Amino acid sequence: MNSIIVTGCCGFIGSTMVDRLLLLGYRVIGVDNVSTGQIGFLDSAIKNSNFQFIQLDLLNLEQLKEAFCGGEFVIHFAANADVRFGTQHPGRDLEQNTNATFHVLEAMRANNIKRIAFSSTGSVYGEASVIPTPEDAGFPVQTSLYGASKAACEGLITAYCEGFGIQSWIFRFVSILGERYTHGHVFDFYQKLKADPTQLEVLGNGRQRKSYLYVQDCIDAIFLAIEKARDRVNIFNLGVNDFCEVNDSIGWICDFLNVTPRLSYTGGERGWVGDSPFIYLDTQRIQSLGWTPKLTIKEGVLRTVQYLRDNEWVFNVRT
Amino acid sequence: MNSIIVTGCCGFIGSTMVDRLLLLGYRVIGVDNVSTGQIGFLDSAIKNSNFQFIQLDLLNLEQLKEAFCGGEFVIHFAANADVRFGTQHPGRDLEQNTNATFHVLEAMRANNIKRIAFSSTGSVYGEASVIPTPEDAGFPVQTSLYGASKAACEGLITAYCEGFGIQSWIFRFVSILGERYTHGHVFDFYQKLKADPTQLEVLGNGRQRKSYLYVQDCIDAIFLAIEKARDRVNIFNLGVNDFCEVNDSIGWICDFLNVTPRLSYTGGERGWVGDSPFIYLDTQRIQSLGWTPKLTIKEGVLRTVQYLRDNEWVFNVRT
Repeated sequence: MNSIIVTGCCGFIGSTMVDRLLLLGYRVIGVDNVSTGQIGFLDSAIKNSNFQFIQLDLLNLEQLKEAFCGGEFVIHFAANADVRFGTQHPGRDLEQNTNATFHVLEAMRANNIKRIAFSSTGSVYGEASVIPTPEDAGFPVQTSLYGASKAACEGLITAYCEGFGIQSWIFRFVSILGERYTHGHVFDFYQKLKADPTQLEVLGNGRQRKSYLYVQDCIDAIFLAIEKARDRVNIFNLGVNDFCEVNDSIGWICDFLNVTPRLSYTGGERGWVGDSPFIYLDTQRIQSLGWTPKLTIKEGVLRTVQYLRDNEWVFNVRT
Repeated sequence: MNSIIVTGCCGFIGSTMVDRLLLLGYRVIGVDNVSTGQIGFLDSAIKNSNFQFIQLDLLNLEQLKEAFCGGEFVIHFAANADVRFGTQHPGRDLEQNTNATFHVLEAMRANNIKRIAFSSTGSVYGEASVIPTPEDAGFPVQTSLYGASKAACEGLITAYCEGFGIQSWIFRFVSILGERYTHGHVFDFYQKLKADPTQLEVLGNGRQRKSYLYVQDCIDAIFLAIEKARDRVNIFNLGVNDFCEVNDSIGWICDFLNVTPRLSYTGGERGWVGDSPFIYLDTQRIQSLGWTPKLTIKEGVLRTVQYLRDNEWVFNVRT
């Protein structure tokens, strides 16, 4: 049996995917440069003889071609995850997302691997005029370097589908929550409140609406789509039919931690430049295949803070 | 007075833009690596004291930052022009279009230049479901590495507009024809028929429909849009309200050359993998500003073959 390759296997979603694949009996090659991921997320996987971990950077094309040897399917999750600092290092998204994805495609081509699943983002819609936003929304105008880089990845992947007979499953995520979640506002709030439970500074006005999906629901949807969708290019929004305000999640987190901080807001509709004030996706397409998320947004947030409480080591090892 | 910077100044459209700018009295800095452009296209420009030519590759960011010093507006036309060979060197479009555009944006940022006009392409629509295709057509699925790379450029530019307060004019061209046209099917047919007027091999079935715009009409539209469209991001299709089949243009070229070759067809709806069988753009948006093309497609084709007949040196110097 050939292997499933997972890039970004030390990441939040990547490591969860690895564990699921191993549970289902697949052989898995995990690739990660361990720059923002956690080797600790592979504690279980590395005990499994079906798992092989290769530490390398996707920007090293020759090593990547070697690593992909024996693979039959690529699940490409590696990405720059520091979304909101795009303007501080404007080349990073291009390099680590777009150019890295090009290398993944070239390594596939070198090894005659014909199928890829890719973690895109609802940010590719820019500031969508239609909400909930369907997959065939209007031609997007990118507003963040992160969204632009992921849209560019999609373009490369679909052009490879056309040019080289590859088949792709592209998933546009809302924010994902759950065990091993280690960036984004729930993580930041938890960390800030642990340090000082008497006050919390909130980027923006707290009214930013967010739609969150629980990581295991996300993985379920990916498996279902790969099983049932058989076009050359298969694009799916993944999210829940609901949203919350940042203030809602602050309330849930504070209740969970039993703290009552004084809230201060930096103001404005956006947490940061390029932050989309509202990503809320139309998920009819994936739901029509028989998928529904099992957890609500609130349940996803609570699973996340439970995980953070039980795994505070993730705060210490992060760079 | 500060200068207008034109990247790709040795190219077909870039050199035409340089001449127009100089005619209008602007100071111009032209940048080109002279890899596919022709230094001969600048014969007139280099006699003008308002013109400065800097030979460099956009991939050299440090040199580019120096070259952009004193610029107030960037017209970014440099690109990989060998569209149809994308699958033979799949990294070239990414490198020479997407990554090069990132460098242009970084060089602008380093020099506090806040305005950019960009030559995109109707290929960014992939295989559009709506024809004529408007600027706000559905979310595109890229089918060529060229289209994907240009769409990625657009994404970078608009993300910079959002993140760094830049203003942009993005032009999605149909194929452009006219004086200095030195690639594409009219060029190829002319060259083949000069070599052997008795036969002509046509890629595809000859029924591919093409919409062509005359280069001076294209330049007119760009000036008008920059003058009148004042949003942060201004996107315009540029084309004519008409199309021809490849067979039509073959007829016009043969009539002009007074030859009657035996035609053979490689077959299929597409000239090459990733070739969009029909790019026909809705140009209401630019026409609403008061622009209409002056030349028909046939007139554009004839101007082109006249130019080629009078300038056969362009065949000799091409690599």
